[in-house]
Amino acid sequence: MATAELMTIPARRGKAVRVPKGRLVKMINTHGTQVVDTWAFNADDLAEFMSMEHTRPHIGRTVPRVGDVMYTNKRRPILTFVEDSSPGIHDTIIAACDRYRYKFLGVEGHHDNCTDNLFAGMAELGLTPPEVPSPLNMWMNIPVEPDHSLSFQPTVSKPGDHVLLRAEMDVVMAFSACPQDILPINGVACKPVEAHFQVL
Amino acid sequence: MATAELMTIPARRGKAVRVPKGRLVKMINTHGTQVVDTWAFNADDLAEFMSMEHTRPHIGRTVPRVGDVMYTNKRRPILTFVEDSSPGIHDTIIAACDRYRYKFLGVEGHHDNCTDNLFAGMAELGLTPPEVPSPLNMWMNIPVEPDHSLSFQPTVSKPGDHVLLRAEMDVVMAFSACPQDILPINGVACKPVEAHFQVL
Repeated sequence: MATAELMTIPARRGKAVRVPKGRLVKMINTHGTQVVDTWAFNADDLAEFMSMEHTRPHIGRTVPRVGDVMYTNKRRPILTFVEDSSPGIHDTIIAACDRYRYKFLGVEGHHDNCTDNLFAGMAELGLTPPEVPSPLNMWMNIPVEPDHSLSFQPTVSKPGDHVLLRAEMDVVMAFSACPQDILPINGVACKPVEAHFQVL
Repeated sequence: MATAELMTIPARRGKAVRVPKGRLVKMINTHGTQVVDTWAFNADDLAEFMSMEHTRPHIGRTVPRVGDVMYTNKRRPILTFVEDSSPGIHDTIIAACDRYRYKFLGVEGHHDNCTDNLFAGMAELGLTPPEVPSPLNMWMNIPVEPDHSLSFQPTVSKPGDHVLLRAEMDVVMAFSACPQDILPINGVACKPVEAHFQVL
């Protein structure tokens, strides 16, 4: 398994990969500060996909942890969290950023965004997602207080931290190295960088 | 406004209604114990709809309260929370129940569910939603603990409690009086009942 190709999710860009059932995906936060928006689609039916709102009631948590199974919008297992070397802070409640988000944040003209990256990554495989599911935002740190308020905080992961996910069906996974450089979710330097993954 | 027709969301069923921009919708928890899954679609483009994952970052909360604006998946205002006579406990993190949910909960054969109710309610208006957005679950009580765990609890609203929502664009709203009768979200008696609304 040590010889598996190390794939790059370029800074501010998307990447997708086919993962057969039973195989493992190792996602690596190379610099420790990078949020990676993560999607998984049933390879045989892209209208079935990993769903945050369907997963939360089944795992009984808003943040998945090792041992948890992620569910599709048809409530079938699609990924299992096998390992996590980071402190386990990930997010399931925030939408992928998009052109509208950056306009809201005062950006004029184009800004890279995770929604476009999902489509671009899938397009490299000749695929088009039928909709934009709410992503599993790996390493994203969105604390929610008892009064239901939330805030956008830097990652708490270390350089080289990884999570290991097992595919529970044949899937297409898509990743976006989040290009957010206005809010400090990708570290206080607000500098989006690349991340990596391997299919083992 | 007192003469506006009182519309019924029958127990375990769905209902949809067109609401012009600027009009108010008064949702009434007639018996106090009923969760009402609530959707809103842009009447001119059903692919644009109220989105929980897009609203949360903009209101900075997981539960909307009076004064908050709900956003679409294009980050445009679609509904504003104008009044809430209940304690303000609503849910944005749990998917609509569906046939798969009840199979998971051990039900054999058909069980009414909010996802089918969305389609049935919209169908009465000759409409088909292009996807099933995560709903605003009015009065649903899903406490989330500091360790990210969640639980399914009975409503804390009183009979006759209402929320008042203002349409910020021409919308089609859909409601489902949630037929959940296995978990106690619709009161400890697990007895789904009807609710009501008025377009003012």
